[in-house]
Amino acid sequence: MNIRSQPPPLLPPFFDTAFRAAFDELLIWRRDVRRFMRDPLAEGEIDALLAAAHRAPSVGNSQPWRFALVESPARRAAVRADFARCNAEALAGYAGERAKLYASLKLAGLDDAPVHLAVFADLETAQGHGLGRRTMPETMEYSAVGAVILLWLAARAAGIGVGWLSILDPVAVGHVLETPDNWRLIAYLCIGYPADPCDVPDLERAGWQERADWRDLLIKR
Amino acid sequence: MNIRSQPPPLLPPFFDTAFRAAFDELLIWRRDVRRFMRDPLAEGEIDALLAAAHRAPSVGNSQPWRFALVESPARRAAVRADFARCNAEALAGYAGERAKLYASLKLAGLDDAPVHLAVFADLETAQGHGLGRRTMPETMEYSAVGAVILLWLAARAAGIGVGWLSILDPVAVGHVLETPDNWRLIAYLCIGYPADPCDVPDLERAGWQERADWRDLLIKR
Repeated sequence: MNIRSQPPPLLPPFFDTAFRAAFDELLIWRRDVRRFMRDPLAEGEIDALLAAAHRAPSVGNSQPWRFALVESPARRAAVRADFARCNAEALAGYAGERAKLYASLKLAGLDDAPVHLAVFADLETAQGHGLGRRTMPETMEYSAVGAVILLWLAARAAGIGVGWLSILDPVAVGHVLETPDNWRLIAYLCIGYPADPCDVPDLERAGWQERADWRDLLIKR
Repeated sequence: MNIRSQPPPLLPPFFDTAFRAAFDELLIWRRDVRRFMRDPLAEGEIDALLAAAHRAPSVGNSQPWRFALVESPARRAAVRADFARCNAEALAGYAGERAKLYASLKLAGLDDAPVHLAVFADLETAQGHGLGRRTMPETMEYSAVGAVILLWLAARAAGIGVGWLSILDPVAVGHVLETPDNWRLIAYLCIGYPADPCDVPDLERAGWQERADWRDLLIKR
């Protein structure tokens, strides 16, 4: 006999066409923000964003995401220095007009964003008992990515912008933040109210890269 | 002079508390579904889901996600056989009560789900011109994960369930689907109307793994 108590069955909520249209607007306005107001987030918003992130799917229910709020000015400065170094190296990989364009891009909001949040995956968590990660262990990292995406959408719904910075040495960031060796950096997020909200990607506005049509990315088998 | 035409400035939409509450419900009910009705999706829903996925953030605007709708019964059978093999090997890694529990879990909805969608990342796409992926090239895969998450949420908003199957050999699946070598399997999704909708994770209901509290996953630096 199964003695686990089961909750009474619940009817799933019905999401009407108005919600679906608003949700689509949310996706359209979920942009990578690099220009922030310096105002702090409203009371309770950081907790609300982390709670939303924590609702992400995870392999075997392992919930491997780990969050580091970076508050120390010295650590923020070290991250900024790592970005400057990595960005200079990236620029050196381009030539001609493309290099000129790259140099003109604003790729990080580190200076103004009131909140810096580093998201990691704990690759050795026992939670989930290894389920689902034998043939695709990278699903641990992917689970933490899901947390980033939900946080991002919840932020946009609250009028808050998020920028995902990947022009960093992930191992160096771990050292700066003194995180455990089994934590792998997934994303370094700048979070704050956007100074220049727009529904077109920054890189498209700057002429770096247009968007594709999803119909060209689909095959049938 | 910059001759790129700029769109007129738009005010971002305001998402009210009713929307935010409904969005939270969406996250709560976004579950990994393994029990499906066999009914086909309503007309146009697959396109709507792919369009939502395509709104994901991507490194350098590279949009590396690639979608393969798996319709051929022979290919579906081959994927099912690969799952059976991988799942048997996974079961062999557990012992005692944990093995018994694992064997009792329903981990895939391959038999009933009307839609099978494999999501890949094209690791060699030129789109994005390499921006942002020099020090963290894994952000290409992460971008495709974002597409999976948005598809999942859009599905739930339409009353449609999604199950992410990772108990597969990703290289074998690529062979079955005859995808290009530079496409890396990110997720194999079963999609359809859920037969047993619930707001509690299946693995929690089955006693496999409880959920953590996000407050325990946060550090401050």
